[in-house]
Amino acid sequence: MVPFINDDFLLQCDISKDLYNSFAKDLPIIDYHCHINPEDIAKDVVFTNISDIWFSGDHYKWRLLRAYGIDEKYITGDASPKEKFLCWAKVISKAFGNPLYHWNCLELSRYFGILEPLTPDNAEEIWEKTSRMMKENPENFSARALIKRSNVEVICTTDDPSDSLIWHKKIAEDKSFKTKVLPSFRPDRLIDIERDTYKDYLSNLSLICGFEINSLDTLLAALDQRIDYFNSVGCRISDHGMEYILYEETNKDEVAIIFEKGLTNNSSLTPEDLSKFKSFMLIHCAKRYFELNWTMQYHFGCIRNTNKMRFNTLGADCGCDSISGSYNFITPLSKILSQLSEENALPRTILYSLNPNDNTSIDTLIGCFQGDNRQMRIQHGSAWWFNDNMDGMINQLKSLANQSYLPGFVGMLTDSRSFLSYTRHEYFRRILCNLIGEQVQKGFFPYDRKILKEIIEAVCYKNAKGLFE
Amino acid sequence: MVPFINDDFLLQCDISKDLYNSFAKDLPIIDYHCHINPEDIAKDVVFTNISDIWFSGDHYKWRLLRAYGIDEKYITGDASPKEKFLCWAKVISKAFGNPLYHWNCLELSRYFGILEPLTPDNAEEIWEKTSRMMKENPENFSARALIKRSNVEVICTTDDPSDSLIWHKKIAEDKSFKTKVLPSFRPDRLIDIERDTYKDYLSNLSLICGFEINSLDTLLAALDQRIDYFNSVGCRISDHGMEYILYEETNKDEVAIIFEKGLTNNSSLTPEDLSKFKSFMLIHCAKRYFELNWTMQYHFGCIRNTNKMRFNTLGADCGCDSISGSYNFITPLSKILSQLSEENALPRTILYSLNPNDNTSIDTLIGCFQGDNRQMRIQHGSAWWFNDNMDGMINQLKSLANQSYLPGFVGMLTDSRSFLSYTRHEYFRRILCNLIGEQVQKGFFPYDRKILKEIIEAVCYKNAKGLFE
Amino acid sequence: MVPFINDDFLLQCDISKDLYNSFAKDLPIIDYHCHINPEDIAKDVVFTNISDIWFSGDHYKWRLLRAYGIDEKYITGDASPKEKFLCWAKVISKAFGNPLYHWNCLELSRYFGILEPLTPDNAEEIWEKTSRMMKENPENFSARALIKRSNVEVICTTDDPSDSLIWHKKIAEDKSFKTKVLPSFRPDRLIDIERDTYKDYLSNLSLICGFEINSLDTLLAALDQRIDYFNSVGCRISDHGMEYILYEETNKDEVAIIFEKGLTNNSSLTPEDLSKFKSFMLIHCAKRYFELNWTMQYHFGCIRNTNKMRFNTLGADCGCDSISGSYNFITPLSKILSQLSEENALPRTILYSLNPNDNTSIDTLIGCFQGDNRQMRIQHGSAWWFNDNMDGMINQLKSLANQSYLPGFVGMLTDSRSFLSYTRHEYFRRILCNLIGEQVQKGFFPYDRKILKEIIEAVCYKNAKGLFE
Repeated sequence: MVPFINDDFLLQCDISKDLYNSFAKDLPIIDYHCHINPEDIAKDVVFTNISDIWFSGDHYKWRLLRAYGIDEKYITGDASPKEKFLCWAKVISKAFGNPLYHWNCLELSRYFGILEPLTPDNAEEIWEKTSRMMKENPENFSARALIKRSNVEVICTTDDPSDSLIWHKKIAEDKSFKTKVLPSFRPDRLIDIERDTYKDYLSNLSLICGFEINSLDTLLAALDQRIDYFNSVGCRISDHGMEYILYEETNKDEVAIIFEKGLTNNSSLTPEDLSKFKSFMLIHCAKRYFELNWTMQYHFGCIRNTNKMRFNTLGADCGCDSISGSYNFITPLSKILSQLSEENALPRTILYSLNPNDNTSIDTLIGCFQGDNRQMRIQHGSAWWFNDNMDGMINQLKSLANQSYLPGFVGMLTDSRSFLSYTRHEYFRRILCNLIGEQVQKGFFPYDRKILKEIIEAVCYKNAKGLFE
Repeated sequence: MVPFINDDFLLQCDISKDLYNSFAKDLPIIDYHCHINPEDIAKDVVFTNISDIWFSGDHYKWRLLRAYGIDEKYITGDASPKEKFLCWAKVISKAFGNPLYHWNCLELSRYFGILEPLTPDNAEEIWEKTSRMMKENPENFSARALIKRSNVEVICTTDDPSDSLIWHKKIAEDKSFKTKVLPSFRPDRLIDIERDTYKDYLSNLSLICGFEINSLDTLLAALDQRIDYFNSVGCRISDHGMEYILYEETNKDEVAIIFEKGLTNNSSLTPEDLSKFKSFMLIHCAKRYFELNWTMQYHFGCIRNTNKMRFNTLGADCGCDSISGSYNFITPLSKILSQLSEENALPRTILYSLNPNDNTSIDTLIGCFQGDNRQMRIQHGSAWWFNDNMDGMINQLKSLANQSYLPGFVGMLTDSRSFLSYTRHEYFRRILCNLIGEQVQKGFFPYDRKILKEIIEAVCYKNAKGLFE
Repeated sequence: MVPFINDDFLLQCDISKDLYNSFAKDLPIIDYHCHINPEDIAKDVVFTNISDIWFSGDHYKWRLLRAYGIDEKYITGDASPKEKFLCWAKVISKAFGNPLYHWNCLELSRYFGILEPLTPDNAEEIWEKTSRMMKENPENFSARALIKRSNVEVICTTDDPSDSLIWHKKIAEDKSFKTKVLPSFRPDRLIDIERDTYKDYLSNLSLICGFEINSLDTLLAALDQRIDYFNSVGCRISDHGMEYILYEETNKDEVAIIFEKGLTNNSSLTPEDLSKFKSFMLIHCAKRYFELNWTMQYHFGCIRNTNKMRFNTLGADCGCDSISGSYNFITPLSKILSQLSEENALPRTILYSLNPNDNTSIDTLIGCFQGDNRQMRIQHGSAWWFNDNMDGMINQLKSLANQSYLPGFVGMLTDSRSFLSYTRHEYFRRILCNLIGEQVQKGFFPYDRKILKEIIEAVCYKNAKGLFE
C-alpha cells in the first residue's frame, strides 16, 4: 500500500508529478528569511529528542494544543519532552485541514523516514524510533547536519542592529560548512520610539557605536554605522515589522525635534509625531539599502500580545498574535514607494501583509512601481505566517500571477525557528507544481516543458538566489 | 433516472458518500440558534399550505423575488398563497447558484417526498400534491411533527430579557415531547441605549422586575435578575447583535453617569459615551454568563433597514439589511476578550461576522484566547446569514481548519424562522463530508475511518450538544 | 494534435461544451462600456501592424513588461513596432496565470487564425504573418471591419459632457454600418471641483452651453443641457468614476455656497464641503438619468497616478493605478440609494468596485434596493479592470449567484481601448458556461437545457440589450 507521504504527495495529475520531479525536487534551498538562532549553527548543537526541536518556541503548535484544550503544563510548562510529544500526537492526529498536519508528516518523513502520520496509536513507537535514531546517529541531528541534509545554500537569520554578529562570523570562518549563514538587518527596536525600553536600547547601542546617541544626527549615524557593519558581514537583506504602515510627509528638522521630544518623554508623542518619525526613518533606511543593493522587507498587519494574561505569564511570541484590523495601508505605502521612486532610491522591496484580504491590493500596487530594467523590483512576499498553508499559498500565487509576473516571484522562505522546517520549501514546491500542472492539464497554459522549467526553477530557487548576487 | 435529490446529492466521490452515510446522516440535530416562535411549538400549530411555511417572514425569499422583478403584491402583499407559490416557482427555477435553490429542493424532498426541483411546469402539480398531503395528514405538518420528523434534540429560540418564557415552560411541561426548546438571552434592547424606544423598554422591564430602573445599579440588578430567570428556565446561551463591535476602557462610575445622561436624553450621548456604555454592559453580561457556564454569541457586521422607503412601508426584517462597511473590529474585540481573560471570566464564546472577509482575522484572533483546558473555548461561528451557502460554508470551514482545530468546531445552526429549515443541517453535513472526503481522496488526509468518524460526529452533533452539558 | 486555442478552450466537461456551443457562442455582442475612440470608427482607421493595436495605450501590457524588467524604450518609448512586439513575445510567453496570456491567444486566433501562443521562437514568423495579412487584406483590419467581424451590435464609448459627439453623429449617418455606436455620459470633470483644471473646464463648458457657469443654478443648467444633448444623440448610459464613494446630507442652498467658494478657491474646500458637493451632484444626476430611463454606472475604489515619477514623465493612464485602501463604502452608498429610492427616482444602476473584497458586500447591498417590478434594477457590474481575469470573474459570478439572481445579471463589457478586445466577451462566455456546466455536472443544478439556455442568453446578451430598449 502506498504510504501517506509518497512521491506523489499533493500532486494531482501526471503533469504536476512531472513538473515537481523533473524541475523542482532537487533544487537547493535559499532560505532568505527565518528566525533560526545562529549560535546553534556556530556551535552545531545536537538535538537529542524530537520534542526539543518541535516544541521550543513553536507557537504554531502551542496554539493548536490550546485549541484542543491541552493543559498549559504540556505546552509551555514543565512536562517532560515525552509527555509533550504524546499530547501532541493526540492533537495533531485529528487536525484535519491544518498546515501543521502536513508539516509534521513531512518532517517525520524527511528526517526520520517515517511515512505515516503520527497518531496516539503509533506515538510510543515513533517516540522510541526517533529517540533511538537521534541517540545512535547524533551526527545526523545536529543543526548543521539538518541544514546539509536539507540542501540549503543560504540562510538569513533576523538580527537586531545592536547584534555583534559574532556567530555569523564564526560560521563563515569554517570553510568546510558550505551553507552561507547571513544576518538580516531588523531595526524595529531602533525605530519604535514609543516602546518602554527605547531609551535603554539607545544606551546600549551608544556603547556599541562608541558615541552617544542624543540627537537625530547621532541616531542616523548609529544606524548607518550598523548597516555598514552588517553589510561587511555579508548582510544583503533587511526586515521591518510594523503593526500598521504609516506615512506622513515631513522633513529632517521636524523629525529632529520629534526625536528629542521622544527622548525626553516618549509617551508625549502624538500619533502624528510617530507617523512622521517612522516614515522618515523608514525612508532613510530604504535609501541606504538602495545604495548597498540590499533587499528591503516590510512585514505588516499584525497585532501582537493581544492576550494580556498570557503575556504577563509567558511574554511575547507565545502564540497570542493576530491579524490586525483592516485599514488603509495602500495610501501610506504608495506614498513611501513613490517618494523613493522619485528620488531614484527605491531598493528591491518585498511586501508581506498578514491579512490575506490584502493580496490583490498589494499585487496591483507593486505593478505601479515596477520598471527601470529590474525584474520584479517590488515583490509581494510569499504567504506569511497564518497564511502559510495550502489555501494561503495558492491564493497568493494566483493573485500574483493574475496581476503580475509569476516567473519573477522571489518565492518561499521558512520564517521558522526550527531546523526541521526546510520541508516547508518542499511543501511550497509541491503546491506550486500542482497548481501549474493542473492548469496545464486543463488547457490554460501549454505543456511546454522548456518554459515551465524556467518558471519553476526561477520561483523555487533562482530568483531568491539573485538577491545575493 | 436518478432524481435531482438523491442519496449522493453534493457528494462528489466515494469517500464523501461513505463519510456522510456512515457518520453524519443519522445524527440528531442540536439547533442552538434560531428564530422560531416558541408559541407555535407550544400550541403545535398546523400548517395547511406550503406558502404559509415558506413565505411568512422569509426575507431571503423576498429578496430573490424582488431581484427577479416580481410585484410586491406577490411578495409581502395580499396575493393568495397559491399565487405567491406560482410566482416563486418562476423565480426559483432559474436561481442558479443560489442557496435557496438547494434549500427548496431539500425541503420539498424531506417533508413532501418531491425529489425534483420546482419549476413553472410542475408548480400546479406540486401545489396540489403538497396541499393534499397537508390536508390529508395534518399530523405530519404541525410544528412539533416537523421537529420530530427532523430528529431535533435541542432548539434554542431567541428571546428578549422581558420575555415571560411562558411558552418555553408550557413546552417543557409536556413530557411526551422530547425535544428541548430552550430560550436564548438576547439583551440588545436593554443595551442599545440610543434607540428611540429605550425608555419605554425600561418602563416595561421595570414592571416585570418589580422595581424601577432609574440608575446603573438598578439596570444591572434587572439584567442579573432576568439572566437568573432565564437560567432557571433552562437557558444556556446568549446572543448579542451589534452593527459594530465597540470597546472603550471605562469604569462603573463613569458608566453610571452616562446611563443617567442617556435616560434624560439619549440623543445627547456621544459616540464615546455609547462605546463606553456598551462595552461595560457587554463585559458585565459576559461575566455573568461565565459564572453560569453559558455560551455567549456575538453577531456583528450588519447594517439594518438600509432602504428607508421599504422600512416605512414594511418595517424591520423585510429584506433590506446588508453587510456593514469594513472596519477594525479586531482591536475592540481583542480588548474585550483580553479583559475577560485577565479577570478569569471569559465564557465560552462564539463569534459571527456578516462579512466573509473577516474569516481569517477571526480565526487568528480566537487562537489567542484558547486554553485553560477547555476545547475551543472561543469559536468562530458557522457561516452566517448571507454566508450560509456552499461557498460561504466551505470558506469558513477551510479558514477554521487552517488556523484552528476543526474537530472542536461547534457546527451548524439554522438561524431560521421556519420549521422546514432543519434541512440546512443536512446541507451543512453533506458539504462538510464532501469537503473532507475530497481532501482524503486527494491524499491530503488519511482515510482513517476511526478518526474521520470522531471529527464528523463532533462537528455535526457532539460539540453542539456539549453546550448544554 | 489539438491546437492550444481550440473549440473546447477552457471548457472542462461535456455539459460546459454543450452550453457554450449551443447557447453562447454565436450571440451578438453588446459592449456597453468601453474606451474606444469614436473618431477611429468614424474614419474607419486601418491598422497596419499588430503592435499599433496592441501597445498604444494598453497599460495592462505596459505593467507586465515593466514587471519583467523590459526597458521603458520598448514599452512607451520610441522603439519600433517590431522591436516592441519581440519584447512582448519574451514576456507573454512565460506569463503563466495572467489574463493577458489568454487575451493574446484569443486575439491572435480570432483575427489572424493563429492558434498557438506567441513565444520568442515563433515571434518573427507571427510578426511576418500578421503584417502580411494586414497588408494584403487591409479591409479586414479597419476599425469597422474588426467590429463587424466581432459581431458587435452596440458600442458605448465614454465621453465628457463637453464632447460635441460629432463622431457618433457621423457614424450614425452611415446606414450601411449596422453597429450602434453610442456615447456614455461621464461627468467626472464637471463634478470633481477639487481638480486644478476645474475652472478652465467650466470656462470651456460655458462656451459650449452658451451661458456663463458662475453659480450652482447655471452649473445644473449646463449639466442638464448636456444630458439632454447626449440623450438626443442616443446616449442611454452614464458613468461616474470615484476614488471613494462619499455621502453627506445637505441641501441646495448649502451646496450653492460651497460651489461659489470652490469657484473662488477650490483648495479652500474642506473634505466635508467636497462630500456635500459631490453627493448633491451625484443625486442630481441620478434623478435626471431616472427620468430619461438611463442606466447609471459607478466605478469606485481606484487610486490613480500613484507613482509620481512616472506621472511626471508619462502622464495619467500609464499603468500606475492601484486598488485604493479599504474603507467603508457601504454606508454612503446605501444612503445615496436610499435617498433616491425614497424620492422614487432610483435609476437602473450598475456598481463596480476595484476591490474584489467588496463583492459580497455589494451583492448584499443591491439586494436591499431591488424591486418595483424591475428585474435587477441595481446591478453588481462585471469583474472590473484588475479583476477582469478568470478568478475575478468566477468570484464575481459566484457571489452574485449566491446573494442575488444570476439570470438577471447584465453581463460582460470590454472596458477597452482596443478593437481586438471583443474576444474578452468570448472569454467571459467560456468561463460562464464552464462554471455553470461544471456545477450541473456535479449535480448542483439540473441539466435542463431550456432553463440553462434562458440563463446563458440573458447574461451574455439579452440583459445588456435591454439597457437600450
